[in-house]
Amino acid sequence: MTQPSQEIIRGARAAMSRLADRNTPFIFNEWYVAAFSDEVGRSLLKRTLLGKRLVLFRTGEGKPVAMDDRCVHRSYPLSAGQLDGDTVVCGYHGLRYDQNGDCIEAPAVAKCPKNIGVRTYPLAERGPVLWIWMGDPALADESAIAALPWMQDSAWAGAKGYYDLKSSYVYLHENLLDTSHLSYMHANTIGSPDYVKAPTTSEIGEGRFALVRTVSPTKLPPVWAKPTGLEGVPTASRIVRNEFLSPALYEVTTRLYDSALPEGERSEFLIKVAHMASPATHNTTHYFIYLGRDFAQDDAAATQFMATNFFKAFDEDVAGLSLLEEVIAEQGEELYEISIASDALGVAMRRYLKGRAD
Amino acid sequence: MTQPSQEIIRGARAAMSRLADRNTPFIFNEWYVAAFSDEVGRSLLKRTLLGKRLVLFRTGEGKPVAMDDRCVHRSYPLSAGQLDGDTVVCGYHGLRYDQNGDCIEAPAVAKCPKNIGVRTYPLAERGPVLWIWMGDPALADESAIAALPWMQDSAWAGAKGYYDLKSSYVYLHENLLDTSHLSYMHANTIGSPDYVKAPTTSEIGEGRFALVRTVSPTKLPPVWAKPTGLEGVPTASRIVRNEFLSPALYEVTTRLYDSALPEGERSEFLIKVAHMASPATHNTTHYFIYLGRDFAQDDAAATQFMATNFFKAFDEDVAGLSLLEEVIAEQGEELYEISIASDALGVAMRRYLKGRAD
Amino acid sequence: MTQPSQEIIRGARAAMSRLADRNTPFIFNEWYVAAFSDEVGRSLLKRTLLGKRLVLFRTGEGKPVAMDDRCVHRSYPLSAGQLDGDTVVCGYHGLRYDQNGDCIEAPAVAKCPKNIGVRTYPLAERGPVLWIWMGDPALADESAIAALPWMQDSAWAGAKGYYDLKSSYVYLHENLLDTSHLSYMHANTIGSPDYVKAPTTSEIGEGRFALVRTVSPTKLPPVWAKPTGLEGVPTASRIVRNEFLSPALYEVTTRLYDSALPEGERSEFLIKVAHMASPATHNTTHYFIYLGRDFAQDDAAATQFMATNFFKAFDEDVAGLSLLEEVIAEQGEELYEISIASDALGVAMRRYLKGRAD
Repeated sequence: MTQPSQEIIRGARAAMSRLADRNTPFIFNEWYVAAFSDEVGRSLLKRTLLGKRLVLFRTGEGKPVAMDDRCVHRSYPLSAGQLDGDTVVCGYHGLRYDQNGDCIEAPAVAKCPKNIGVRTYPLAERGPVLWIWMGDPALADESAIAALPWMQDSAWAGAKGYYDLKSSYVYLHENLLDTSHLSYMHANTIGSPDYVKAPTTSEIGEGRFALVRTVSPTKLPPVWAKPTGLEGVPTASRIVRNEFLSPALYEVTTRLYDSALPEGERSEFLIKVAHMASPATHNTTHYFIYLGRDFAQDDAAATQFMATNFFKAFDEDVAGLSLLEEVIAEQGEELYEISIASDALGVAMRRYLKGRAD
Repeated sequence: MTQPSQEIIRGARAAMSRLADRNTPFIFNEWYVAAFSDEVGRSLLKRTLLGKRLVLFRTGEGKPVAMDDRCVHRSYPLSAGQLDGDTVVCGYHGLRYDQNGDCIEAPAVAKCPKNIGVRTYPLAERGPVLWIWMGDPALADESAIAALPWMQDSAWAGAKGYYDLKSSYVYLHENLLDTSHLSYMHANTIGSPDYVKAPTTSEIGEGRFALVRTVSPTKLPPVWAKPTGLEGVPTASRIVRNEFLSPALYEVTTRLYDSALPEGERSEFLIKVAHMASPATHNTTHYFIYLGRDFAQDDAAATQFMATNFFKAFDEDVAGLSLLEEVIAEQGEELYEISIASDALGVAMRRYLKGRAD
Repeated sequence: MTQPSQEIIRGARAAMSRLADRNTPFIFNEWYVAAFSDEVGRSLLKRTLLGKRLVLFRTGEGKPVAMDDRCVHRSYPLSAGQLDGDTVVCGYHGLRYDQNGDCIEAPAVAKCPKNIGVRTYPLAERGPVLWIWMGDPALADESAIAALPWMQDSAWAGAKGYYDLKSSYVYLHENLLDTSHLSYMHANTIGSPDYVKAPTTSEIGEGRFALVRTVSPTKLPPVWAKPTGLEGVPTASRIVRNEFLSPALYEVTTRLYDSALPEGERSEFLIKVAHMASPATHNTTHYFIYLGRDFAQDDAAATQFMATNFFKAFDEDVAGLSLLEEVIAEQGEELYEISIASDALGVAMRRYLKGRAD
């Protein structure tokens, strides 16, 4: 048996100390997805984000509102109360808050106490998702929300899903950026044996980390081949761009075509997936997924097939990451990770997250 | 958004530091309800009170006994053993304890070790409940047990219930003393919208805190109106006295009548509820309830109707307090509570509990 | 009530401080049962032993292998991967380990990193069980495995069972060595009222502790009487030798016969039980049991009857020890145990375990 030497282990731990992990503080100054837009309506939705309990709702005019889910009086969760018009009434003693979070009524006393209320948070709706800013309000800038135009484009057909992931969002991002796992964790779904060995190029920018992988020629697994009509084609190309866009957002773009046909004469198919990671606690993550394609938009069977089969792969990630989180938590101080060349991007990304958090 | 200023929060925290909360040590020198009398018989009943595991039973003559539920030998719980005559035999190695807690036999050895045994606790039976004293034995004084004569009066019809409440008993007492919550938490059961605004008077005595609320004229909710025949009467009066009698006991007395009729010509109805709070651990409470009335004593349907409907309201308290406990526990050091004028009695009561505990 | 005096309690705690308990470090330099042999085959078996996650499997040639269940790369459990020939392939990124634990392939990189791998552990197969050595590899000596020849002898009929015991292995050993509990904990299964009072002799050797109990004449409980034909015989003899052989192994030998018949003319029956305790964590134990007899070897009904009825008794131990562990854990620093003369062997054994661990 060749266990790593103490020197290797010491080196591994020194390297890890510069990387974000499950113990790294949250990055508050960032836009995160709070919910799918259609989750938030005229009732009170309870959701924990970045360790804080929030309550979300819409006013009568449809404006989304997010506020701390804790009455200032006796800490009763507002989400257990009532939405009354555009105000929230605490279910314990009836304190009433307006959409700005100001307490405007305390029924048991003649005069409502002055200058009390709960914090509200800037929200911004972009297509199917609602973004929230939980950092310094003075820094909230909607133009900083990573734009994914295709998610709002009616020329794209979409499907969405959600996981209550039992893992830190750090490991989800690392999973997304290190796609060599497709040949193993996803051997029976979206991966193929040749995926891991296919050539890649990396791009590192300011808070952006991208990997482009070219798998060609290849035989596509059914989840890709069926909806594109490339089933059985031995000369398929699969060009994948994986990009970390922010601590909250990750985009995968896959381009598929038959490389035996010359450019211009062949059909090309684009499939995009937005992976939206919103930390709930240090070891749980709201994992929102949006899946889109630019072809066969009206083909409900294709939508159904792709949703079913892609989410089988995401199920694998969620199960694997939950298992990983459990092992990492259990190891505590004993833990060490030995990185290899293919981890370069993930390591750079985790160093970036660590820098943003400190 | 108008969050409380740092100054308000600092003030709130300073005020809280003088009040009992979930972290306050137990008050041992007090009589608590250990069980309903009919729970304790000729078998071993296991119950945790004030953080200690106890076992309760009755001797052949019917005398109730409470002792530590832990064999002195290897700590096996006595409640997992056998009641043999008036002795308890440990289910592991057969050590035998008499009703005084003295170890009188250790079968594996020729001679039982001297001067070992388990602690027993003074008990006192009062009507449907069994009181226990877990403090300094020298201070156990049965005359200090708060007397609720109606609970032992055959002219009253009663019903009882029990909750394994997932909350500190401190928050249960505060809930009971701050009745403005009836218009909100109990909007669909025992409360009415006008309840919160009805005039109140407060009484503060040595370890006694009472609130009297006069709701008149009012339209009674069905739970009160049906059994009294005051259904649909727009001129009903509801006079409620809520009184903290000890850390273990709280009494609610409700007087109902039709105020349109002159005194002497009208029927008056008395309903009383004893709320008995026995801390199990710092965040769980044995919550015993006894409900009585001085009218229609033989009307089984009325008893059934009242029990069903009052306990729906108590269910609401139990669910609400469990939720509250969860939020408070999660907030830890971040917690602050902003009190309002209607909290004055509750705050005085919590200050008293804190004083008793320290 | 006669609670022990402070002096007695202080003495009890001083005595306890020299004994192994649930907080005592594991004894690594020892052979433990890792699994029943037939549990380990051509798939990956996950098992936690001495606080470490391991994975077990057999090579194509049938050789058993045990290794740390944690990929050196990102800590993914190897047991969630694949057994491929005689190698284990991590289910996350495909790192491949050979049967020596050496990492021999990292598919995402051209060259596998040098000198990394996972620890493997010496295993030794002895009849129905697989022994593992998790201590200093230089000290692994197969001749130190306690030999129980009857477990490998085809002239003995056997039955086996396993418990995921929710208790420290220390309390299991103490339970096994202090057989006076048979008259209480096992009153309805393998015990009899006279068992606790029957004469015993003790033997204490280097890491060996034995108790011999002679119950004679006695009336055997059905579990012993039925398969031996001694049912209803008032002059039965039951000679029991209980022996702690190592921190991992305990053997019980029971000899049964009718003492009314002279030696030589009577049938004698031997029943043996191996109790194999392998700590999983500090408060859970893999409890393997093997039960054998030297008579009626081909009587399937007797095998079935004995297995069913003996395991009823072991169920009682497992339930009792789980309860005990819960009470002991809850008491923390408050705990004290008062030992009596019949505890002498158990106390010596716990002192030995403590010495081995320190």
